[in-house]
Amino acid sequence: MNLILLSRGEVAPSGEFSLDGPRANHLLNVLRAAEGSVVRVGILDGASGLATVTRIGAGAVGLRGTFDSAPPPPPRVDLLLALPRSKVLRRLWAQLAAVGVGRIVLTNAEKVERNYFDTHVLKPDCYRPLLVEGLQQVRDTRLPAVSIHRQFRVLVEDHLDSLCPNKLRLIADPGALATVGAVVREAAAERVLLAVGPEGGWNEFEKGLLAAHRFLPVGMGPRALRTDTACIALLALVHDALPR
Amino acid sequence: MNLILLSRGEVAPSGEFSLDGPRANHLLNVLRAAEGSVVRVGILDGASGLATVTRIGAGAVGLRGTFDSAPPPPPRVDLLLALPRSKVLRRLWAQLAAVGVGRIVLTNAEKVERNYFDTHVLKPDCYRPLLVEGLQQVRDTRLPAVSIHRQFRVLVEDHLDSLCPNKLRLIADPGALATVGAVVREAAAERVLLAVGPEGGWNEFEKGLLAAHRFLPVGMGPRALRTDTACIALLALVHDALPR
Repeated sequence: MNLILLSRGEVAPSGEFSLDGPRANHLLNVLRAAEGSVVRVGILDGASGLATVTRIGAGAVGLRGTFDSAPPPPPRVDLLLALPRSKVLRRLWAQLAAVGVGRIVLTNAEKVERNYFDTHVLKPDCYRPLLVEGLQQVRDTRLPAVSIHRQFRVLVEDHLDSLCPNKLRLIADPGALATVGAVVREAAAERVLLAVGPEGGWNEFEKGLLAAHRFLPVGMGPRALRTDTACIALLALVHDALPR
Repeated sequence: MNLILLSRGEVAPSGEFSLDGPRANHLLNVLRAAEGSVVRVGILDGASGLATVTRIGAGAVGLRGTFDSAPPPPPRVDLLLALPRSKVLRRLWAQLAAVGVGRIVLTNAEKVERNYFDTHVLKPDCYRPLLVEGLQQVRDTRLPAVSIHRQFRVLVEDHLDSLCPNKLRLIADPGALATVGAVVREAAAERVLLAVGPEGGWNEFEKGLLAAHRFLPVGMGPRALRTDTACIALLALVHDALPR
């Protein structure tokens, strides 16, 4: 944890706040904080800064912080992802927040099994702490937006333009020869929406609908990676290709 | 599992072999194979091909295969990795084999905790099946070479040249401005050795020793990713930058 994230409501106008539970534990047992220690803190979707430990009580730690650093610029990549099985998704949340995505759009597809939707990994109570974990790793404060869509066609035809407006759209396609770097640079894109399909691939209708909605195929060589590995690898390529 | 991997010793000269345990389970319950079904198979560090199910018995499946496809070309990237904690390493094995690395060199460093070496995740019995899982995902047959080194200096000074000869060497450095793509393309490298440090970073001595042994720093923006995420992201960038 390279930054301790707080909700805005946790911090008094004076900058004082109190931590208990896992964050207090981390402070005391990993960071080995004592009274007077200074740690890096941030407010979710807000500024970050430094806080001084003012008091260590039974299971709770009091701190006073100054929040004067702007958060890093918002990620310029959004992800349209066919819902993976829960074990894979659970592993992904923190990594996606760490690599940096503005919005995570999870969708149904033919090869997404029905029961993938019946998991607590899709509940904010489960995924929000995992997203926060990823943000804390990389000292970001901006929580990615998350939405879940059971109707692929309705999503692509009616909602995607407002969710992810006005940007280059890419679809990961094992067969494509164009590379992420070449397509992003050629388009001089400032924002990218990347679509990653289910383990078994999009079906022909889904591919056609995405093509009709401006998704350009990009390849990544002949190795068909597991969804979580593919997401990280592709997001790294997109981030790398965007102008600095 | 997009390919079922066998050891050479498992296959009779006639091409016949028998599967039990998890591979038989996978055949019957995931691939739903019946007599006459054809599945993709490969021999570890050898050729791949197709096999026909000839017999389904109690807990074992008989097949006959033809192994006539050359494996994909060997990965042109090796990884020098400061030993991560076992939970992270366990997650990494399959992903490294899937993304493609020729050799995995695990090393000690100041910020590697002593007890990281006391884990069964470093035993071939544990990591070999995980590497095989990654290979099966991407239909590769070449097992990455693995070596474990408790003396960083001895490794870098005496062994690294023979383990990973004659190639561009990169060190992931959060502060570096040079990008993986720029450095790899500029060097017109055919093979790359990538060094990824411990969560707390290399110390000054370690950085100096790596610099003295031709490791060039490459950055990846300001987000300091977790070791496993960083490895996947950086390996994707290196693979992408190598000539096709």
